[in-house]
Order: sequence, then structure tokens, then C-alpha cells
Amino acid sequence: MIRVREAARRLQGKVRVTPCLDLEPGAFGLPGHITLKLEQHQHTGSFKVRGVYNKLLTSTIPLAGVVTASGGNHGMALAFVARELGVPCRIYVPEVATPYKLAQIRKYGAAVQVEGAVYAEAAEAAQRYADFSGALNVPAFDDPAVVEGQGTLAFELEQQRPSTETVLTAVGGGGFIAGLCSWYQGRVKVVSVEPDGSPTLQQALLAKKPVDIMTGGIAADSLGCRRIGSVPFSILQDGVAQAVLVSDEVTLRAQRLLWDELRIMAEPGGATAFAALLSGAYQPGVDERVNVIICGGNVDPHSFPVGA
Amino acid sequence: MIRVREAARRLQGKVRVTPCLDLEPGAFGLPGHITLKLEQHQHTGSFKVRGVYNKLLTSTIPLAGVVTASGGNHGMALAFVARELGVPCRIYVPEVATPYKLAQIRKYGAAVQVEGAVYAEAAEAAQRYADFSGALNVPAFDDPAVVEGQGTLAFELEQQRPSTETVLTAVGGGGFIAGLCSWYQGRVKVVSVEPDGSPTLQQALLAKKPVDIMTGGIAADSLGCRRIGSVPFSILQDGVAQAVLVSDEVTLRAQRLLWDELRIMAEPGGATAFAALLSGAYQPGVDERVNVIICGGNVDPHSFPVGA
Repeated sequence: MIRVREAARRLQGKVRVTPCLDLEPGAFGLPGHITLKLEQHQHTGSFKVRGVYNKLLTSTIPLAGVVTASGGNHGMALAFVARELGVPCRIYVPEVATPYKLAQIRKYGAAVQVEGAVYAEAAEAAQRYADFSGALNVPAFDDPAVVEGQGTLAFELEQQRPSTETVLTAVGGGGFIAGLCSWYQGRVKVVSVEPDGSPTLQQALLAKKPVDIMTGGIAADSLGCRRIGSVPFSILQDGVAQAVLVSDEVTLRAQRLLWDELRIMAEPGGATAFAALLSGAYQPGVDERVNVIICGGNVDPHSFPVGA
Repeated sequence: MIRVREAARRLQGKVRVTPCLDLEPGAFGLPGHITLKLEQHQHTGSFKVRGVYNKLLTSTIPLAGVVTASGGNHGMALAFVARELGVPCRIYVPEVATPYKLAQIRKYGAAVQVEGAVYAEAAEAAQRYADFSGALNVPAFDDPAVVEGQGTLAFELEQQRPSTETVLTAVGGGGFIAGLCSWYQGRVKVVSVEPDGSPTLQQALLAKKPVDIMTGGIAADSLGCRRIGSVPFSILQDGVAQAVLVSDEVTLRAQRLLWDELRIMAEPGGATAFAALLSGAYQPGVDERVNVIICGGNVDPHSFPVGA
């Protein structure tokens, strides 16, 4: 049972209420009424802190603290929440993690251990540490309390923009979008957007079960997840209205446009949902009220793709 | 007579309603309830478009179009509005203008003419062009219609955050803050924040009239104005509740903090008002509701001062 309202109450004052920005009619030649949910202004620069906070507040934290494997946003979120709650924190990161995100995790005071070429190896190391020390291994998405926490964004958005008809969001392991679906219960059309190099959810929906896929592309550091979580999938199977894909090229264009025209700095994964509008992968109706979630802003400004 | 309400009606749908972000109580160790007005998401990345749009919509535009002298935000705003209205536009920029802002002005299709080492020389060239061609020379701040347009931000903010007690804003030539004061008419305490290297308004308030000062510092490209405008000064003389200064060092710290903790990318001038809270130049009361205007985001990400 996913109790989003209770989670929202629990997280009040602990996570930020992030603002919405309404685009002018016809902006960028797009139909519909487009609103952006600026979740990149959240603590640690992504929605991840919602799920992690809810997980930790509903768990008994062992003396050894918390541990996870993450190359980025989830690790940053856990490091932040652990610091807020004053518990020890250890993050195993694979070698593919971007130096920028690594530095951010360290900034929050977590012990960082680079381990393994890919995420799966870092995950094994984190589990070994949890087994040995007794630390709580905090999952990134495949967990009811994490899904519940992510859902608080939809709870918040419904208060801010009650007339929203459609929400577009990027998908990695499925925890975030599952949270949104849990709250909306079909009242709002939830559309998943994935890079065509990491169609984790789309493939699972086709197979009617979580399946392993190959991942890659420019958003791989946040959306490159090999297999959709079982907890999320049980919700998404009927919860997702439409599953679309976008190319890296359009995601890059979305990133540039968000900066050039709106001074929003999004990481590739944070611009992926908006890319679905630009490419036409999702085409709103003339008067459709569409909310696009800018879910992450963890990009090194110095390597940001400036210019059109 | 400054008619902000009429300007707000005129600009509806033409300028963006920019969002507010409420900081959590105690954020950054600051007292009070702090809200940021994210005006850097405005068209062309600053509030300037409000004043320029109002000026052009209330003027007869000659066939020769519009002209101005500007090293940055005002020039970008005029180029943008001219493009929207389909009128020719020429911008004279001094050699000190940042390449980033120059490229932005060109992006909107204006004819750009680099002229003179400092702003005053570019301004003379713009006036010569206006005299010769008949083009409308659009002032950056010393004009009632421009002040009126800038005031629409306060009109908008009062709807978004009606309980605001204090507004902190950076000051260059005084047009923007004069617009805010015109709308609020003393209902809200308006505090000016200037770089200690460009205390244009503070010196004028001390002298009880506009005076020439030396300007400099990291925010000089947007706030470095030699002399406060006469139209703004007539409003500001009694309108400004408090005039404070900040050092470049704290402005730089504000810029970094806004990015590191909030994923807000502000130019130095856009971070100046927030710097007054960090330095304690303005100290809110325990429960004071303070709005800080992030008035510009026109910075080249590649030269952004990353890291603490």
C-alpha cells in the first residue's frame, strides 16, 4: 500500500516545495498549455531526496548507519538526508560516475568508495558492506517507502496546478513515475519518457514483466537502469498511460533550449521529458494542460552544452 | 504618473509570470522567512524585458525602428521585444560588454555595433544614430514608461506572496527599484542593494540628488551605472526604506551558494540582493517575510564560478 498523503505530511518542511513555471501559449511552437515543474531546485538538485527521506523516516536506522550504491543523484540524496539526520553514510559508486556528482556526494560528508566498472558491481559491494556491518542498504527505487516519497511531488503538484491533465516524466528505475501514478490513480494521464538507448520501462511493458535491457546514451548516469524495479512495475503496468522514447540528439536540444530561453539548467535526464514535446514523441491537444517535470539539475556548468 | 496596474494588463501574456521559491526556515542560517523571486527565468534572462515592452507598446515606433546603447541585459531585452513586434533594432555596445551577452543580443536578430571603450561613448553613438535615422532611442531606466513596466514585477509578486513585508533588490540605474516602489507605495519595505564598488543610489540618497560616481566590480556589466536616473530618483528619494552595500566577495559567495544549494544560476548582479542576507548587510527579523529578487541569469555557464 503506497500512502503518499502520509508521506507528504512526514516530509513537510524537510523537502522543498518546488515552483512551477507556466510557458506562454505557443512557446517553442508547442500546442497545449505547458507548465514546467522545477524540481531541479530540490535539495541535492533532484527529486531523489523525497524517496530517501521517506525511507529513512519510516525505518529503524542501525548504528552502522546507511549505505547504497549509486553513481549520482540517489547517492547525493542519501548523503544529504543522512547528514540531516546525523547518521553515518557510505556510498559505493561505479567508475562511470561523473566527477561532478562524485564531488557533490563527498560534499555532504558521506564516505565514498569507488568500486567496480559498472553499477552492478558497486551494488554488490554495497550489499557486502550492509551484510558485514549491519548498515541499512537504501534502495534507489525498488521499495514501497521510496516510491511513496517520490509520489509527494504529485501530491504537491496537484495543489499547485489542480487542472493538470497530463504529466510527462523521465524514467530510470521506475520509482519516481510509480510514485506519481500512486498518487494520481488515473486522475491524470502519466506519460513516461525514456532515452531510446535505455527503454527500460517500455520493454518491460511490452514483455508484461521487468526484463534486462542494454543501456547507454547521454542520460545514462541518471536514467540508465538495466531493469525496472518490481515494486514500481506492479504499479506502472496499469498506471502509465503512454510510454514514449526520445533520441539523445533531441535531449541535448532540450537541454540547450531550457538554458537559452528559460535559464533552466537541467542535466540530460532532467531535460528528457521536455525533449518528448520538442520531438513530437508526445503531442498535446490544442488546449491540453501538460506538466513537464524537470527532475534533475546535476550538471557541471563548465561542461554544459552551451549554444544552439 | 506611474501606472503599474495598466502596464501589468498591457504586458499580460507577453512577459512571463516568474515563479517564487520559498526557502525552508533556517536555510543558510538566515533568520526570517525567505522567498526568492526567480526573475532570471524571464524572457532574455532578466526583468529588463518588462520595462522595454511597456515602453514600446506605449510609443509610436518610427519606420527606422529602435536603438539603444547597452552592454547587456537592456540590449538583449530590446532586441527580443523588437523581434516580437517586428521592428528594426540596432544596439550600440561598449567594448567592455561580455562576449556572452553580445552573442545573446545578436541571437535575437538585432544589428550590433561595438562602439567606444565605455558605456558613455556607446550612448553618444546611439543618440547620433537616433538623430540621423529617426529611430526611437529606448532608455534603459530614466523613463516613466520603463519604470512602469519594471513595476509589474511587484504587481505580480503581490499576488503571489501577498504577505511579503520586505523586498530586497539590486540597483543599477534605479529603474527597476523605482518601479517596485511605485507599485508598493510604502506597503512593503523596499531595500536597495548595491556593490560597494558602484554605490550609485546610496551616494545619490546621501547627496539628495543624482551624482556621478566611479563604478567597478564583478557586477559592473549589469549594475555599474555612473549616475542614478532622474525619473527613478524622484521616486526613490522617499520610496527606498534602506540602502545597503555588499562586497564583490560576498556576491561571488552568493552566486556559488545559489548554484550549489538551489541550482539557480544567477549573474553577479542577479546574486547581489541575496548577498545582502549572507553578509548581514540586511538582517531580517525572526519572523520577517523577505522576498529576494534574483533579477538576472545572464552568465556564461562555462565561466561560472563553480565550487565553494
